[in-house]
Amino acid sequence: MNYQELSHQINSKSSYLCVGLDTDINKIPQQLLKEKDPIFEFNKQIIDATIDYAVAYKPNIAFYEALGIKGWESLQKTIEYLPKDVFTIADAKRGDIGNTSKMYAKAFFEQMNFDSITVAPYMGSDSVEPFLEFEDKWVILLALTSNEGGKDFQFEELKSGETLYQKVLDVSQKWGTKENLMYVVGATRSKEFQEIRKSVPDHFLLVPGVGAQGGDLEELSKYGLNENGGLLVNSSRGIIYGSSDTNFADVAGAKAKAIQEEMKGYLERVC
Amino acid sequence: MNYQELSHQINSKSSYLCVGLDTDINKIPQQLLKEKDPIFEFNKQIIDATIDYAVAYKPNIAFYEALGIKGWESLQKTIEYLPKDVFTIADAKRGDIGNTSKMYAKAFFEQMNFDSITVAPYMGSDSVEPFLEFEDKWVILLALTSNEGGKDFQFEELKSGETLYQKVLDVSQKWGTKENLMYVVGATRSKEFQEIRKSVPDHFLLVPGVGAQGGDLEELSKYGLNENGGLLVNSSRGIIYGSSDTNFADVAGAKAKAIQEEMKGYLERVC
Repeated sequence: MNYQELSHQINSKSSYLCVGLDTDINKIPQQLLKEKDPIFEFNKQIIDATIDYAVAYKPNIAFYEALGIKGWESLQKTIEYLPKDVFTIADAKRGDIGNTSKMYAKAFFEQMNFDSITVAPYMGSDSVEPFLEFEDKWVILLALTSNEGGKDFQFEELKSGETLYQKVLDVSQKWGTKENLMYVVGATRSKEFQEIRKSVPDHFLLVPGVGAQGGDLEELSKYGLNENGGLLVNSSRGIIYGSSDTNFADVAGAKAKAIQEEMKGYLERVC
Repeated sequence: MNYQELSHQINSKSSYLCVGLDTDINKIPQQLLKEKDPIFEFNKQIIDATIDYAVAYKPNIAFYEALGIKGWESLQKTIEYLPKDVFTIADAKRGDIGNTSKMYAKAFFEQMNFDSITVAPYMGSDSVEPFLEFEDKWVILLALTSNEGGKDFQFEELKSGETLYQKVLDVSQKWGTKENLMYVVGATRSKEFQEIRKSVPDHFLLVPGVGAQGGDLEELSKYGLNENGGLLVNSSRGIIYGSSDTNFADVAGAKAKAIQEEMKGYLERVC
């Protein structure tokens, strides 16, 4: 999916919601465990219930990898089930030397046909660029993450005066464009949000922190939205684990709808 | 495998060689393609031919992931085939928020029973610590990588005067010990090697760069070895793709033997 198509989806659904499919076999409703593929069955029902309110879906790959080959099968079925007009994110946080990153790109862009993948910046340009060579595919580079450990290095002040995450934003803009490069920006730090928007006014930002990680949707929408949307806001646990009962999909749908309605209001302010 | 057992292996084989199983379906000898599982067949023959000269094996996970479910099956068979007295490294460069890193740890330490996994430091403490909670399992943290892009951020000078990779070494020593934490140190920079040894005198260092990435074994052994070994030096392409003919395993064995003999000499100098 390209930039224009993604902006169009945001416009037409009045939503920039990404549903995080962090599907944990120990957390899904008991009655699904009798299904042949409980993980896929759960995802399928969540997707059906939320598809009108979400523009993107983000399986966190760790949850599938932890189940071995069965997990990869569930992931493959999930990505095949998702309609072509939603943006798909492999939250994999990969990154390695060039020939290896190329292998990861093949795995996620060709084997599984994801639109995008999250990538860690520590190994620099040649670890990221192989992902950028695929047409209409995206890198979502970690810039500022919302976890506690994010403070260990990302806020380090460099001799030049900027912080490490600012340096990541600056340097990486030479590797890709707003058409194939997004950034992960942790929502719990809305003070930094304005400043980040100044560095990357046009790039899409993926905000992973609304819900369990405690972001403030109004605040980050105020600073993060631009005229093309420019934001994808993820909620995982807050949507998919709203209920552990037979009505889990309905509850997920209602939660997604509530977020979408809030987003609609914020979108109207900028468009 | 614990610290003492690894040191013992190094001593008894007079080797600190790690064989990188970056097994690429497009590079393995043609005649293997008629096998049911060419990747595993290649690995099996490489392992048989090199097992007397190597103390560790490091499959780069990307090469398996790129093949989808079949690749994961080949990886699983490979890890099961490796004898218990070699150290196994999942070169996966994972790292995510706490509950997600725990999932990755389960995938590699429980599902696949690897001894260790490479982890990227950008997301800080809570992305690394879940891996350190498994007994006799190891994190191998990226500190200084040997690729060109490694220069983009790792050498950034911080306000404190140290470089980012030094900061990673300093901070991460609070997370683990020499018994469960190693570092990736790119061999192409032996000037930095001495300095790194001062920061982490007792930790094992994994050097990924001998062979195709151009490290100098004598130089890095001089600065990197300590009385417990303290080094694992990886060679991937230089060993496994020595010949594309039917004799590929013999050639790999001979190449591994030559490196081991050189290593034996360097070990005698320090022990």
